[in-house]
Amino acid sequence: MQQVKAARAAIDTIRFLAVDMVEAAGCGHPGAPMAQAPLAYQLWTQHLRFDPTAPEWLNRDRFVLSCGHASALLYALLHLAGYGLSLDELRAFRQLGSKTPGHPERGHTAGVETTTGPLGQGLGNAVGIALAEQMLGDRFNREGFPLFDYRTWVVASDGDIMEGVASEASSFAGHQALGKLNVFYDANEITIDGKTSLTFSEDVVARYRAYGWHTLVVDDGNDLEALGSATEAAIAEVARPSLILVRTHIGFGSPNKQDTSGAHGEALGGDEVKATKENLGWPLQPEFLVPDEARIPFAEAASRGKSLRSQWEEMWTSYQGAHPELAAELERRRGAQLPQGWRSQIRQPGSNDPPVATRAASGAVLNAVAGAIPELVGGSADLTGSNNTLIKGSPDFSAQARSGRNLRFGIREHGMGAILNGMALSGLLRPYGGTFLIFSDYMRPSIRLAALMGLPVIYVFTHDSVLLGEDGPTHQPISQLVSLRSIPGLTVLRPADANETVAAWQAALDNISGPTALVLTRQKIPVLAGTGDGAAERGVPQGGYVVAEAAADPEVTLIATGSEVHIAIQAQALLEADGVQARVVSLPSWELFGKQRSEYREQVLLPGECPRVAIEAASPMGWERWVGDNGQIIAQEGFGASAPTADLAEHFGFTGESVAEKVRTRLGK
Amino acid sequence: MQQVKAARAAIDTIRFLAVDMVEAAGCGHPGAPMAQAPLAYQLWTQHLRFDPTAPEWLNRDRFVLSCGHASALLYALLHLAGYGLSLDELRAFRQLGSKTPGHPERGHTAGVETTTGPLGQGLGNAVGIALAEQMLGDRFNREGFPLFDYRTWVVASDGDIMEGVASEASSFAGHQALGKLNVFYDANEITIDGKTSLTFSEDVVARYRAYGWHTLVVDDGNDLEALGSATEAAIAEVARPSLILVRTHIGFGSPNKQDTSGAHGEALGGDEVKATKENLGWPLQPEFLVPDEARIPFAEAASRGKSLRSQWEEMWTSYQGAHPELAAELERRRGAQLPQGWRSQIRQPGSNDPPVATRAASGAVLNAVAGAIPELVGGSADLTGSNNTLIKGSPDFSAQARSGRNLRFGIREHGMGAILNGMALSGLLRPYGGTFLIFSDYMRPSIRLAALMGLPVIYVFTHDSVLLGEDGPTHQPISQLVSLRSIPGLTVLRPADANETVAAWQAALDNISGPTALVLTRQKIPVLAGTGDGAAERGVPQGGYVVAEAAADPEVTLIATGSEVHIAIQAQALLEADGVQARVVSLPSWELFGKQRSEYREQVLLPGECPRVAIEAASPMGWERWVGDNGQIIAQEGFGASAPTADLAEHFGFTGESVAEKVRTRLGK
Repeated sequence: MQQVKAARAAIDTIRFLAVDMVEAAGCGHPGAPMAQAPLAYQLWTQHLRFDPTAPEWLNRDRFVLSCGHASALLYALLHLAGYGLSLDELRAFRQLGSKTPGHPERGHTAGVETTTGPLGQGLGNAVGIALAEQMLGDRFNREGFPLFDYRTWVVASDGDIMEGVASEASSFAGHQALGKLNVFYDANEITIDGKTSLTFSEDVVARYRAYGWHTLVVDDGNDLEALGSATEAAIAEVARPSLILVRTHIGFGSPNKQDTSGAHGEALGGDEVKATKENLGWPLQPEFLVPDEARIPFAEAASRGKSLRSQWEEMWTSYQGAHPELAAELERRRGAQLPQGWRSQIRQPGSNDPPVATRAASGAVLNAVAGAIPELVGGSADLTGSNNTLIKGSPDFSAQARSGRNLRFGIREHGMGAILNGMALSGLLRPYGGTFLIFSDYMRPSIRLAALMGLPVIYVFTHDSVLLGEDGPTHQPISQLVSLRSIPGLTVLRPADANETVAAWQAALDNISGPTALVLTRQKIPVLAGTGDGAAERGVPQGGYVVAEAAADPEVTLIATGSEVHIAIQAQALLEADGVQARVVSLPSWELFGKQRSEYREQVLLPGECPRVAIEAASPMGWERWVGDNGQIIAQEGFGASAPTADLAEHFGFTGESVAEKVRTRLGK
Repeated sequence: MQQVKAARAAIDTIRFLAVDMVEAAGCGHPGAPMAQAPLAYQLWTQHLRFDPTAPEWLNRDRFVLSCGHASALLYALLHLAGYGLSLDELRAFRQLGSKTPGHPERGHTAGVETTTGPLGQGLGNAVGIALAEQMLGDRFNREGFPLFDYRTWVVASDGDIMEGVASEASSFAGHQALGKLNVFYDANEITIDGKTSLTFSEDVVARYRAYGWHTLVVDDGNDLEALGSATEAAIAEVARPSLILVRTHIGFGSPNKQDTSGAHGEALGGDEVKATKENLGWPLQPEFLVPDEARIPFAEAASRGKSLRSQWEEMWTSYQGAHPELAAELERRRGAQLPQGWRSQIRQPGSNDPPVATRAASGAVLNAVAGAIPELVGGSADLTGSNNTLIKGSPDFSAQARSGRNLRFGIREHGMGAILNGMALSGLLRPYGGTFLIFSDYMRPSIRLAALMGLPVIYVFTHDSVLLGEDGPTHQPISQLVSLRSIPGLTVLRPADANETVAAWQAALDNISGPTALVLTRQKIPVLAGTGDGAAERGVPQGGYVVAEAAADPEVTLIATGSEVHIAIQAQALLEADGVQARVVSLPSWELFGKQRSEYREQVLLPGECPRVAIEAASPMGWERWVGDNGQIIAQEGFGASAPTADLAEHFGFTGESVAEKVRTRLGK
């Protein structure tokens, strides 16, 4: 009885903290927290393993609020559970500098596992988080030492379930039999536009069964017993992920807004808050009321969690004695340190090497370092051979082989992006994922979130320009380079040959504060003289450098990236034959070059009076930054065409002859 | 018997035309055409209603090859069916300037209904094509005049079915009960990476049943009788879309490559072509062999189609007499002419109007012109009220109300993008779709294809900068503006007030050769003095113009877009108070401004010696083009934050004071 009363008090506390937060902000989403409070209460106090004093405990259960707009729910939970999120922070909901922004932000608020809000992403992240548990367990767990056996819990809304990224990730999760992934689907039948029946009449449970999931239904989202039983059943099912459909009432308790879209995305308003509190028998004042008894079940859960964590820490201590090498590896990974000597595994290409596509050079680097860096895991969205992303000698990750480091994401780029983020959130894996550069568009929302969260995901984007050839304009990226460069916090690297590819991979692996996109050719290109002897290793981390100096004082600077550096060098030779001295600059990364001192940049690009010509087989947009008013941009203005590479180069003017001709015209020579 | 022999000959002709095309090109995808030849044969010769002499016949059945990499199949079919695609064109597969590019391109090759290749898109387009049939039928069909009753046929591959965009569109199609949409799912269990069992073990049929589809299975893709029965059953089912799973063998007939990924994406090679031809009893020479008997079933089908089309043309003639107004409307739409007088429906805002968000101004224009332009139909991805995309007084489009012009896309941005393309492909609808600007990322691959196809889709992207406020960085677009601007053929318009919003909508509706993105504020902004009296109507189509001239000779030009124009005008006043004369330029569209004569651009922006300062609450990328070396860019370098708009403006420096201060510093005043 006492317990029932405490539960009721705790649930209403969650509800009204959320209501009061939204009311104080004057905006936000009260309806979902009001509906989800019972299931969140039940999960957090009865099942979730967490220690609020150690929010980064490696084996904590993960709670992902995929419907990030219900952030007030999460903040209320974090407050009650003792994560140090004060009532004052709750009062500052959605205010500048608060710990309680409109949508939960990983790294900003302790206890927030991932940044959510863009729908479907959290569920996709959760698949990666659950996958990481299996990978890490396989690597580190030993007899008597279950270091990793956490569960991943998700609350997802209709919107999450409708998004294609969730479909992709869920299909993948079913295939991979991620049995410790449990998703509560908050089926409240309301979206912003109104009833889900306006547009969403599919049988979600049947769909998830078709994905190979275990499914459960709770008909009344206020029925704690039913929630508890379903949760236990989900826990008991270890061979399949579980979807628990919970029927709830958005804005539960609000006399005039419950079960309407009016409860979704705006403050209830003073009168309705009053009516709701009266309806549920909650004191009108004070706002942000937290009765002592509401804290009890959370304190108990936190105490149990703390004890679980203590046991885990003891186990960890014993583990260090029993398995010192594994323990050292785990410590190393936790410190985001790559192992000593990984760089020396890489064979430096020689200028006598035959021409090689940078995608192939990338595959060679990956395989050279994979042995030394066990946390480097990844795969491709069904383009493994084309992206050269296979780690040779490793099995595919699968339900039967959790040791596998090669992930077969299927033709699911967006799902891949979200899953990579989830894997990176572990802090113990360095995930990479490959597709064609053109299809970076399919996964762009996930790339953006990796950047926002500062996750060190590595993207392997191959087939990087119109010069990919016959696949034609549907597959030829034009706007993707500039679009990726414009994402804050993402480092884009487009190496010009095998040496620069080595340096680019090194820069990617060295970058632990954000994602890196490697942009690579399909076609073979020679190894440049100017990238050897450490030149690329020195130059690439600076974003740009002189890769081929003019024979005498340069009259023009040719700036290019990737395969177009070779075109620039061909033009340089033709120009020199005509008595025009040109310097060639390779500019593999705008972001890294932009971070250099202006003196260095000026030294590389030369002052603007000496004309600068940019050559890139992609959108010209943004190149003005580097060439200036006196410059010229030789780029791809429109879409490409289907033809062999050499014909396209000729057709679109990406040849040494064409560039040299344009430069001569520009210089009036 | 004769018939069976002809069928067999025709099927093998399709197979080997595709094989020979790929072999001639030295690259391409032979495996899928070899597998799909029987179902394509059966469909095209027995069911598909087409007249090759009138590829744009309004009531033709549509054939969408969603797996565009199987283009050789489509080209073989178009050749056999008499679309005037010569064997020489087939021999020039994947060559520059041919009608047979690597992936099918709408507008490039007669008979290609939509550009495919990026997986999932074709299936999504097909949903829009089938939806258009229902809309157009409702509008134009009259008793005895079934002008529109075409079917939409799709061939989709494993990759299409895995993509999230297909999930979204398929769920929508099931909800909308698009009974004339029939999808053949070519289940060959092979993708590029190998067997689908590597990553794809879901029960696709059960999943589609969960979406509300009618499902059928053909166990042997070479069994014409089974294919025929299933197709008849699909035709008979009018209340639900049909998915026909057809089990096929990729690379059918190839002794060493059938049922392997080796048949997917590369030429079989001379030896294997020989072995395959021998295996199937096909002459080794000549290549590109088309036996006369293979042409017979196609000729018969074309003849039937021609006759159907003649009947339709007769019906159309009678219809013109019986329903002259509707006939005139259809003719008008077919000519891509908007009705006379639509512009006069718009109320021109006055400078005394209260401040209004451009999203609200957009909703007002939409509703003002909707009555006059019946082909204007669209909706939002569950943000109808936020995007102001509702046409008031019209019902929602639904299974019960095909007259509805408001589409409820659900939380399915990518599906929406693909469906809008399909609707626009009709040439008889002007579809629009709304979401937050940030979520343009979710639908980017479809936007790109609209641009590539030149489809006049209108995007209504609201909540267009950090100044949207409390939703925070997950929802605040930074890189989206430049990313959209970088897509060739897409016109991006970011109006500065209600007057510019009117002009932007007019420009969007006038643009029939490609998509237009309207980028709109969440927050209210005043109506500017400088946009009235036709100034915006003259200036916006030019992309940029002087919206507030300096009181005396300008010393600096402030250039801004959208809500930042107001900040520029505030700065202008502050600067003038300090004796600094500033001109303010509104630059709503880079694309349109870029198309103006350089004299006009110079006249607006003033020569570079007079410093130019750009103000945009988004990525600075690309602004160098307009401000030049002597300029300054006041933009948003990193991600945003969650706070009220005014606090964000202050925090990130998007205020008149902050801008004026920076300009003074820049000018040394």
